Amino acid sequence: MSPLRTPVAAPDRSATAGILQGALVDLLDLSLLAKHAHWNLYGPRFRSLHLQFDEVVTIVRAQADEVAERAATIGASPDGQAAAIASSSSLPSFAPGRIKDTEAVTTLMSALSAVISRMRESTETTGITDPVTQDLLLGITGVLEKQLWKLRAGTNA
Amino acid sequence: MSPLRTPVAAPDRSATAGILQGALVDLLDLSLLAKHAHWNLYGPRFRSLHLQFDEVVTIVRAQADEVAERAATIGASPDGQAAAIASSSSLPSFAPGRIKDTEAVTTLMSALSAVISRMRESTETTGITDPVTQDLLLGITGVLEKQLWKLRAGTNA
Amino acid sequence: MSPLRTPVAAPDRSATAGILQGALVDLLDLSLLAKHAHWNLYGPRFRSLHLQFDEVVTIVRAQADEVAERAATIGASPDGQAAAIASSSSLPSFAPGRIKDTEAVTTLMSALSAVISRMRESTETTGITDPVTQDLLLGITGVLEKQLWKLRAGTNA
Amino acid sequence: MSPLRTPVAAPDRSATAGILQGALVDLLDLSLLAKHAHWNLYGPRFRSLHLQFDEVVTIVRAQADEVAERAATIGASPDGQAAAIASSSSLPSFAPGRIKDTEAVTTLMSALSAVISRMRESTETTGITDPVTQDLLLGITGVLEKQLWKLRAGTNA
Amino acid sequence: MSPLRTPVAAPDRSATAGILQGALVDLLDLSLLAKHAHWNLYGPRFRSLHLQFDEVVTIVRAQADEVAERAATIGASPDGQAAAIASSSSLPSFAPGRIKDTEAVTTLMSALSAVISRMRESTETTGITDPVTQDLLLGITGVLEKQLWKLRAGTNA
Amino acid sequence: MSPLRTPVAAPDRSATAGILQGALVDLLDLSLLAKHAHWNLYGPRFRSLHLQFDEVVTIVRAQADEVAERAATIGASPDGQAAAIASSSSLPSFAPGRIKDTEAVTTLMSALSAVISRMRESTETTGITDPVTQDLLLGITGVLEKQLWKLRAGTNA
Amino acid sequence: MSPLRTPVAAPDRSATAGILQGALVDLLDLSLLAKHAHWNLYGPRFRSLHLQFDEVVTIVRAQADEVAERAATIGASPDGQAAAIASSSSLPSFAPGRIKDTEAVTTLMSALSAVISRMRESTETTGITDPVTQDLLLGITGVLEKQLWKLRAGTNA
Amino acid sequence: MSPLRTPVAAPDRSATAGILQGALVDLLDLSLLAKHAHWNLYGPRFRSLHLQFDEVVTIVRAQADEVAERAATIGASPDGQAAAIASSSSLPSFAPGRIKDTEAVTTLMSALSAVISRMRESTETTGITDPVTQDLLLGITGVLEKQLWKLRAGTNA
Amino acid sequence: MSPLRTPVAAPDRSATAGILQGALVDLLDLSLLAKHAHWNLYGPRFRSLHLQFDEVVTIVRAQADEVAERAATIGASPDGQAAAIASSSSLPSFAPGRIKDTEAVTTLMSALSAVISRMRESTETTGITDPVTQDLLLGITGVLEKQLWKLRAGTNA
Amino acid sequence: MSPLRTPVAAPDRSATAGILQGALVDLLDLSLLAKHAHWNLYGPRFRSLHLQFDEVVTIVRAQADEVAERAATIGASPDGQAAAIASSSSLPSFAPGRIKDTEAVTTLMSALSAVISRMRESTETTGITDPVTQDLLLGITGVLEKQLWKLRAGTNA
Amino acid sequence: MSPLRTPVAAPDRSATAGILQGALVDLLDLSLLAKHAHWNLYGPRFRSLHLQFDEVVTIVRAQADEVAERAATIGASPDGQAAAIASSSSLPSFAPGRIKDTEAVTTLMSALSAVISRMRESTETTGITDPVTQDLLLGITGVLEKQLWKLRAGTNA
Amino acid sequence: MSPLRTPVAAPDRSATAGILQGALVDLLDLSLLAKHAHWNLYGPRFRSLHLQFDEVVTIVRAQADEVAERAATIGASPDGQAAAIASSSSLPSFAPGRIKDTEAVTTLMSALSAVISRMRESTETTGITDPVTQDLLLGITGVLEKQLWKLRAGTNA
Repeated sequence: MSPLRTPVAAPDRSATAGILQGALVDLLDLSLLAKHAHWNLYGPRFRSLHLQFDEVVTIVRAQADEVAERAATIGASPDGQAAAIASSSSLPSFAPGRIKDTEAVTTLMSALSAVISRMRESTETTGITDPVTQDLLLGITGVLEKQLWKLRAGTNA
Repeated sequence: MSPLRTPVAAPDRSATAGILQGALVDLLDLSLLAKHAHWNLYGPRFRSLHLQFDEVVTIVRAQADEVAERAATIGASPDGQAAAIASSSSLPSFAPGRIKDTEAVTTLMSALSAVISRMRESTETTGITDPVTQDLLLGITGVLEKQLWKLRAGTNA
Repeated sequence: MSPLRTPVAAPDRSATAGILQGALVDLLDLSLLAKHAHWNLYGPRFRSLHLQFDEVVTIVRAQADEVAERAATIGASPDGQAAAIASSSSLPSFAPGRIKDTEAVTTLMSALSAVISRMRESTETTGITDPVTQDLLLGITGVLEKQLWKLRAGTNA
Repeated sequence: MSPLRTPVAAPDRSATAGILQGALVDLLDLSLLAKHAHWNLYGPRFRSLHLQFDEVVTIVRAQADEVAERAATIGASPDGQAAAIASSSSLPSFAPGRIKDTEAVTTLMSALSAVISRMRESTETTGITDPVTQDLLLGITGVLEKQLWKLRAGTNA
Repeated sequence: MSPLRTPVAAPDRSATAGILQGALVDLLDLSLLAKHAHWNLYGPRFRSLHLQFDEVVTIVRAQADEVAERAATIGASPDGQAAAIASSSSLPSFAPGRIKDTEAVTTLMSALSAVISRMRESTETTGITDPVTQDLLLGITGVLEKQLWKLRAGTNA
Repeated sequence: MSPLRTPVAAPDRSATAGILQGALVDLLDLSLLAKHAHWNLYGPRFRSLHLQFDEVVTIVRAQADEVAERAATIGASPDGQAAAIASSSSLPSFAPGRIKDTEAVTTLMSALSAVISRMRESTETTGITDPVTQDLLLGITGVLEKQLWKLRAGTNA
Repeated sequence: MSPLRTPVAAPDRSATAGILQGALVDLLDLSLLAKHAHWNLYGPRFRSLHLQFDEVVTIVRAQADEVAERAATIGASPDGQAAAIASSSSLPSFAPGRIKDTEAVTTLMSALSAVISRMRESTETTGITDPVTQDLLLGITGVLEKQLWKLRAGTNA
Repeated sequence: MSPLRTPVAAPDRSATAGILQGALVDLLDLSLLAKHAHWNLYGPRFRSLHLQFDEVVTIVRAQADEVAERAATIGASPDGQAAAIASSSSLPSFAPGRIKDTEAVTTLMSALSAVISRMRESTETTGITDPVTQDLLLGITGVLEKQLWKLRAGTNA
Repeated sequence: MSPLRTPVAAPDRSATAGILQGALVDLLDLSLLAKHAHWNLYGPRFRSLHLQFDEVVTIVRAQADEVAERAATIGASPDGQAAAIASSSSLPSFAPGRIKDTEAVTTLMSALSAVISRMRESTETTGITDPVTQDLLLGITGVLEKQLWKLRAGTNA
Repeated sequence: MSPLRTPVAAPDRSATAGILQGALVDLLDLSLLAKHAHWNLYGPRFRSLHLQFDEVVTIVRAQADEVAERAATIGASPDGQAAAIASSSSLPSFAPGRIKDTEAVTTLMSALSAVISRMRESTETTGITDPVTQDLLLGITGVLEKQLWKLRAGTNA
Repeated sequence: MSPLRTPVAAPDRSATAGILQGALVDLLDLSLLAKHAHWNLYGPRFRSLHLQFDEVVTIVRAQADEVAERAATIGASPDGQAAAIASSSSLPSFAPGRIKDTEAVTTLMSALSAVISRMRESTETTGITDPVTQDLLLGITGVLEKQLWKLRAGTNA
Repeated sequence: MSPLRTPVAAPDRSATAGILQGALVDLLDLSLLAKHAHWNLYGPRFRSLHLQFDEVVTIVRAQADEVAERAATIGASPDGQAAAIASSSSLPSFAPGRIKDTEAVTTLMSALSAVISRMRESTETTGITDPVTQDLLLGITGVLEKQLWKLRAGTNA
C-alpha cells in the first residue's frame, strides 16, 4: 500500500463514502432541528427539554465530526454545506413559530427514529465494505437509541 | 409592563426580529461552511488551518445561540432549520471535492467579510430599535473582524 | 485630573449615583425574593424551578456587586443594608407559607419585569451622565431579559 | 489501650455493630431501589426525576460506605452481600415493569421515611453505646430528611 | 411514619421552626451588612478587609441556605424576604457614607457576637426539640466564632 | 419505524432483553461482592486490595448502568432490586466475618470468571438478535477480563 | 467589501488607528510602571500592594493585547517596542531605588488617572470613527476606573 | 457579649484550652512521627505504607490546624513549637536508623491508639465546658479511628 | 472455567498472542520513529509537525499499552524490549542527521500505512480466534487511519 | 556499581548525610515556628501575615520532604522526630502567649536568616561531597532568600 | 547574619546587581519585541508563529520577574521602567509597519542570540559573586537556547 | 554570535553531543525495559510495582525528551530509533515470559544503577564543555537516584 493510497480500496470506498455522506447529512440536519427546538420551545417542561435538546445537539455534532473525518480518511469529500443538507435530508421539520413542549418531543422522536432506521441499514452494508466504518456507525446507533429512549420515557406512552 | 409582554414594544420588535433572523442565518451558514472546510482541506498549511477553522466554528456557533435566544427573548421565533439557511443565506459556497488550503482561506475571508458587512448595518438600525440587541451585535462584529484579520494575516497580501 | 478626583464630575456623578443606588436596591431585593421562592416552592415543577431560581440568584448577586462597586468607583456610597432595601424597593412580595410552582413563576416574572423596566429608563439617562455606567446597565438588562424569557417559556402562555 | 484492641469495648460494641448492620442493609437496599426507579421511570417528569434519583443513589452509596467502614473500625464485620440485603431489609419494592413518575416518587418517599425512622431510633441508642457512631448517624439522618423534603416538594401535597 | 409527614412531630416542630426562622434572619442580615462594608470601606487595611468581608459573605450565605432548607425539611416555611429581615433583625447598622476600616471591623464584630450569642442559646433548645437541627447550628456556631477570632486578631486589642 | 416503537423488533427484543437482565444481575451482584470484600478484608496485602476492589466496584457499577439503560432503550424493564439479585444470581458468596486477603482474591476471581463466561456466550447470541447490544457486551467483557488478569497477576500462580 | 479590505474605511481608519496607538503606549507603559513598583516596594502595606500591583499588571497586559489586535484588525500596525513607549508616553516615573508603599500608591494613582482621562476622550472620538473600537475602550475604561477606586480606598483620603 | 470577649467564659475556657493544647501536641507529634516513618521505611510493603503514612500526615496536619485555631478562637494561645512538643508529648518514638515495615505499623498503631484514647476522654470533658469544641474533637476521633482500622487491617491479626 | 484459566482457550490463544506481539512491535517502533522525527525535524512546517508528531506518539504509546495488556490478559507474555523491536519490525527508518519537513511526513506516512495494512489483516484473523481482541484492533485501526489522513492532507497530493 | 550500593560512596556519604540532617532539623523547626506564629498572631497586619506565614509553612514542609528523601536516597536515615528537632535546632523561639505582628516578623526573619546562613555553608561543602545534594540545597537557599526579602520588604527598614 | 542584612555581602552584591539589571533590561526588551512581532506578523506561517511568539513572551516575562525579584532579594533596586529599557538595551528592532513571517523569525533569532550571549558571560561572573544567581541564570540560558532552536528549526537553514 | 550558529562552539559541541546521545539511548532503553516489566509482572507485590514501574516510565520518557531537545538545541542530531537503542545500549534485559515481582525489581535496580553511573561521569565532562547541559544532567541524576532508593527501600536488603 503506497502512502498516498487510502486504507479502503476502490469499489468498497465508493459504497462506504455514499453511506457516510448520507449519515453526515442526517446528523447535521438533526443537530439544526434540535437546536431550533431548543430556541422555540415553550410549556411547563421548558427547562428540562431546553437542556435535554442541547445535550442532543452536543452529541450529534460530535458524531457528525467523526463521520465526516472518517469520510476524509478513506479519501472521500464529505459535503456538509447548507445546500447539501437542505436538498438531500428527509427529516421532518417544524412549522414557523413557537413550539409547544409536547409537540417538540414528538417531532424530535420522529426525526431520531428515521435517522436510527437508516443507520441500522448502513451498519449492515459497511460490515462488508469497511468494518472500521461499521464499528463507528454501530457506536453512533447505540447512543442515538439511548437518546430516543430518554425522550420516549418523558411521555405518558 | 405586564409579565407577559416582551421587553421590546411592537414596531421596534418586528424590525429587531428581522435583523436577528438575518444574523442567525448568516452565522449558522458560516459555521457549516467553516466546518466543511475543516474536513475537506489539504495542503502544507493543513494542520494550522484545520485547527483555526474549528475555532471559528466554536465562536460562530456560540454567537448564533446568543442571537437566537435574543430573538426568543423579545418574543420572536428564530428559524434555524436547514431550509431557512439554504433559502435565505447569500454566502459563497465550495464546489464539491477537496479544497486547497489557499482557496479555503480566500473563500472563508469572503464569507466573513459579507457577514461583517451586514452586521455593521444591523448595528446602526438596532441602535434605534433596541440598544440591548445593538450591544450584542457590536460585540459579535468585533470578534468576527478579529477572526478576519487572523485569516488575512496568514496570506501574503 | 488629580489622583483624588473620581472619574465622573459633580452634576453627572450625583445623577449617576442615584440611578446606581436604585438599581442596587432592585437587584438585592430580587435576589432575596428568588432565594425565598427557591426555599418555599412546591408542585410538580419543583426540581426544575428550584435549580432555575438559584441560577437567577447567582446572576443577580453578581450584578449587584458590579453595580455597587461602580457606585464606589465614581465616589458614591451605595447602601445595601436591609433597611434600605425594605424601605425603597417596590417589587411584589410573597404571602407567608409555601408557594405553588405556578404562582412562584408568575410573581418572579412580575418582579423581573419591573426591574427591567426601570433598568431601561436608567440606561437612557446614563447615556448622558456616564457612558461607562450605561454600558454596565445595558449588559445587565440583556441578561435579565433572557431570564424573563426562560421563565415565560415555561408557562403555557 | 493496646494497638490490637478496637476503640469501643465489648457490650457497647455488639449493640453498636447491630445498629450499623441494620443501617447498612437499609442504605444498600435504598440505593438499589432508587437506581431501579432511575432505569424504569416514565412520564412527564422523567428527566428531572431520572437525575434526582441518581443524586439519591450517589448520596446513599457514600453513606453505606461510611457506615460499613465504621463497623469495621469498631471490630465488627458488616455484611453487604445480596442475600443479607434481600433477607433482612423491610423496604417497599416495585412490581415488575415500567414505573409511572408519580408512583416512583411515592414509593421512594415511603422507603426514605422508613429508613429515616429507624435511623432516628438508632441515633438515640448509640448516644449511649458509641457517640462517634451517633454523630455519624445524625449527619446521615439530616441528609436523608433533606432528600425526602425535595421529593415531597415535587408533589402537589 | 407516612411519607407525607415531616420528620419532626408537632410541638417540637413549631419550636424548632421558630429558632430556624430567627437564625435565618440573623444570617441574611449579617450577609447584607458584610457586603455593605465590603463596598463602602476605606483606609490602609482596605484590600485585606475587602477580601476578608467577602469571605464572611460567602460563608454566611451558605449557612442561611442550610438553615432555610432545614426549616423546609421539617415542614415549616422560612421567610427570607427583605421585609422580614428589616422588621425582625436586631443587628447594628452603618450610618450612610464611606466607612473607615477600623470602624467597619468593630461593627461587624458586634454583629457577629450578637448572632453567635443567639445561636448558642438556640443550640441548647434544639438539643431537646430536634438533635439534627442542633448538630447543624453547632457547626454554624463554630465557623462564625472562628470568623470573629480572625477579625479580632486583626485589631490591637 | 414509528416514534413509539423500540429499535429492536419483537422476537429479537425478547431474547436480547433476557440476556441483558442476566448480565445486569451478574454485574450488580459482583459490585456488592467486591464492596463487601473491600470492607471485611485483612492481611498484609490489605491496602493494595482495598483500593483495587474499589476500582472493580466503580467499573462494574458503570457497566450495570449501561446494561440497564440498554434494556430500557429496547423497551424492556430491567429488574435491579435486591430480591431479583438474591434469587437469580449464581455467584459465590463469602461466609460471615473478616476475610483473609488471599481468600478474598480467590473468591473474586471465581466470581469474575463466572460472569465473563456467561458474558462471552451472550456476546455470541446478541450478534444475531441485536448487534448494538453485542458491541456493548464485547466492551464489558474485555474490561472484566483485564480486571481478572490484574487479580491473577497478584498471586504466585 | 472585498476580502482584502479592512472593516473600517480610509479616513476613519487613520483616526481610529492613531487613538489605538496612543492607548497601546499608555497601557504598556502602565504595565511596566506597576511591575516596577511591585519589585521595589517596601513598608507595612508591602504584601497587600505587592499582590494588588500584580493584578493591575495582569489586567493592563490583557488590555494592551486587545488594543493592539484591534489595531491590526482594522489594518494598522501597532508599535509596542521599547523606543515607541519611551518616546511617546507621558506617564510619571519613579526615581531610582526602593519605593515607600505610600509613595508607590500615589504615583500609580496619578498614572492611572492620566490614562483614564485620555481613554475617556478617545471613547468619544471613536463613537464616530468606529463603534466597535469605542465599545472596546469603554470596557477598558470601566475596569481601569475600578482599579483606581481600589487604590484610592486604601488611602485615608 | 461584647465584641472583645471570646465565646467561652472564664473557668470553662481554661479547661477547654488545656484540652486543646494537649490535643495539639499529640497531633503535631503524630504528624512528625508518621512523616519520619514515611522516610525511613523499608521492606516488601514499602510503597503501600510510604503512601498510607503520607495520607495520615496530611489528615493529622489539617486536624492540628483546626485544633490550634479553635484554641485561638476561644482566646487561648496554642503552643506548637518544637520544645512544647518534645517536652509534653507521650507518644512512642523510633530508635535511630531505618525502620522495618512491620515495626513501623506497630509503632504508629500504638501512637494512634494513645492519641485516640486521650481524645475520647477530652470529648467527655468538653461536653460540659464547650460543646463546639466537643463537636470538633468528636469528628477528629472518628477519622483517627478509621485510620487505625486501616493500619490494623493490613496486619495478620 | 477455573479462576486460574485465561479467558481464551489453547489454540486460539496462541494465534491471538502472535498477532498481538506483532502489533505491539509495530506500535512501539512507530512511537520511536515519530519521536525521532519530532526531534530532528526542520523546515517551514516545523512547529505544526513538531506538535502533530507528538500527538501521534501519545496516541500510539497508549495503543501499545492496550495491546500488551490484552496479551497479558489472555495469558501471553508480550515482549516490548529494544532487541525485540529492532529484530522483528519492518518499518522504514531515517538516515542519520536532521530531517526536512517534507521528507519526515513522507516517511511517517509509509510507516503508518504499513502498520495499518497489517492491522487490517489481524482484525480478520482475530474475528475467529478472539472477538474481544478484534474489537480492540478495529478501534486502533480507525485511529491510525485518521492520523494518516491528517498527515496526507498536509501534503499537496 | 552494584544495585545495592547507594550512589554516594563512604566518606562523602557521611559528610553529606550530616549536612542533610542539619538542614532537615532547621526546616522542620522553621515550619513549626511559622505555623505557631500563624496561630498566635494579632495586630493590624494580621490577615496579610496569617496568609504569608502559611505560604512559608507550605514551602518549608515541601523542602524538608525533599531533604529527607535525598538523605534516604544516599543511604542515610534522616531523623525528623520531635526530640531530634528540639535538641539540635538553634533557631529562636517565641515566649508563651499571643504575638504582636511586628514581633512575629522580626523573629521569623531572624530564624530565616539563621537557616539561610547555614544553608550557604552547606552548599559549599556539598560541592565536594555530592553535587546532586548541592544543587538541591542551592535551590532551597534561593527560595528561602526570596521569602526573607518578602518579609523584610514589609517592614519600614 | 542579622535579619536586616541581605544574603550577599557588599562587593559581590554590587557586581551581581549590575548583572541582574542588565539581564532584566534584555528580557523586558525581548518580551516587548516578541509581542510586537506577534501583533504585526503576516504570511503563510502566521498562525504557527503568532502562537509561538506568545509562548516566548510568556516564558520571558516570567524570567524577568525571577531576575528582578532576585535583585530585590540581594538588596538592589531593579529598574524596569520604559526609559531604562529604551536607553540601555542593545537588541535589534523592527521598522514601522507589518512584518513578513520570514523577517520576523530572523530578527527574533538575532535578538535571542544576543541575549543568550550576554547571559552566558554573566553566568561565569556570578559563579564567583553569587552562586544562587548563577544557578538562576543558567536555567534561563538553557530555556532561551531551546527557544532559539525552535525558531531556527522552522527555517530552511 | 550570528543567528544561525548554535550556542556551543565546535569542539565542545561534539563532545557534548556524544554524551547526550549516550544518555538518550540509556533513557529510551530504560523506558522500554520498565514498561516491559510493567506488563509481564506477577506475584503478591503486583499492584504496587505495576503502578511504580509506570511512574518510572513517565519520568524517564520526559527526561529523554529533554536530553534529545538539548542535543538539537546545540546543533546535533539525536538518534532515538530502535536500531540505535538496540545496538548501543548496555542495559540488562529480561528473558522471555512472565517475570516474578522480586526478579523484576532486581533487574530494574541494576539497569538504573548502570544509567546513574554513566550519568555521573557525563556530569563531570559537561562541566567543562557545556554547563547548561551539566545542569540538565545533574537534575536527571538526582531524580533517577530517588527512583533507585524507592525500589531499594521496597526490598529487604
